[in-house]
Amino acid sequence: MLLFFATYVSCMVSVLRLGHRVGRDDRISTHVGLTARQWGCDEIVYAGQEDSSMMESVQDIAERWGGDFSVSYTESPMSVVKDWDGVSYHLTMYGQKPGSAVSGGSLPENSLVLVGSQRVPKKFYEASDFNVSVGNQPHSEIAALAAFLDRFSQVKTSFEDADIEVIPSENRKRTREK
Amino acid sequence: MLLFFATYVSCMVSVLRLGHRVGRDDRISTHVGLTARQWGCDEIVYAGQEDSSMMESVQDIAERWGGDFSVSYTESPMSVVKDWDGVSYHLTMYGQKPGSAVSGGSLPENSLVLVGSQRVPKKFYEASDFNVSVGNQPHSEIAALAAFLDRFSQVKTSFEDADIEVIPSENRKRTREK
Repeated sequence: MLLFFATYVSCMVSVLRLGHRVGRDDRISTHVGLTARQWGCDEIVYAGQEDSSMMESVQDIAERWGGDFSVSYTESPMSVVKDWDGVSYHLTMYGQKPGSAVSGGSLPENSLVLVGSQRVPKKFYEASDFNVSVGNQPHSEIAALAAFLDRFSQVKTSFEDADIEVIPSENRKRTREK
Repeated sequence: MLLFFATYVSCMVSVLRLGHRVGRDDRISTHVGLTARQWGCDEIVYAGQEDSSMMESVQDIAERWGGDFSVSYTESPMSVVKDWDGVSYHLTMYGQKPGSAVSGGSLPENSLVLVGSQRVPKKFYEASDFNVSVGNQPHSEIAALAAFLDRFSQVKTSFEDADIEVIPSENRKRTREK
């Protein structure tokens, strides 16, 4: 019974990237995905314009470098927020200090982190449990996500089932095929 | 005499963005600049292709939102590294843990932080005092810069001489013209 319970209740951290625009946002959205993966999030969900090429590039990196990171698309990001069974944090330059939103120094088990593009509709400010800013200055959503995750979760240096890994070096590029 | 000394020895944190490519890197390089400013760096120096439009966009934001952040271009990034009178940190996915490079929990007074684009020539790995990685995984240089600075410097929430500032809010965008 305990085993069933543990299997049934899966805890996760999910990043929802709002308002992707094909072409203009390709690299930024890719970087958002890599950042979510690097800090151990379970998935990224992209909204805005569907962009299979950008999503595949994130998925390809995730498969080669290991782990179980999921990349998907939603036509209805508001449903993702409203249906989320946990706490949602919208990262915005207009929000409150992260420390006022995350208690205990680490993200709750089921956390949804929203990352916007240039204009995030007002309804996402209202639907999120917390609107959070790391500095109340014009910012990069990638920097906001990295700093937020780095404060309240653990960066990952290795993943299971990787085809390749870095051998940390003082002065050069070293990798090892596995 | 003391005043002269204090004026002469200016301490600073500088970010050197290597290998900028016009068009392809516009937004990434802009985000690198905003990240450097947000965490209180004194300047960003861009190398690679000269891009006055991108640099102006960073400078315009810095002027409107305050502070004394400098944006410039160099044709010779290696000279910047070699002539640097302080400690240089190259952020790369191939490097060593940040804690092994920064002692005492904060950046030294004269720190140069190098942030690459896709391919950083080997000579920069060799010329930098430290090659540093926050996770040894495929990463965003913006995320790497944000996490590195957030660990070893103080994010700034306000700047002097700003024309505008955010009023932190629980659920909406609020700003104040000053």
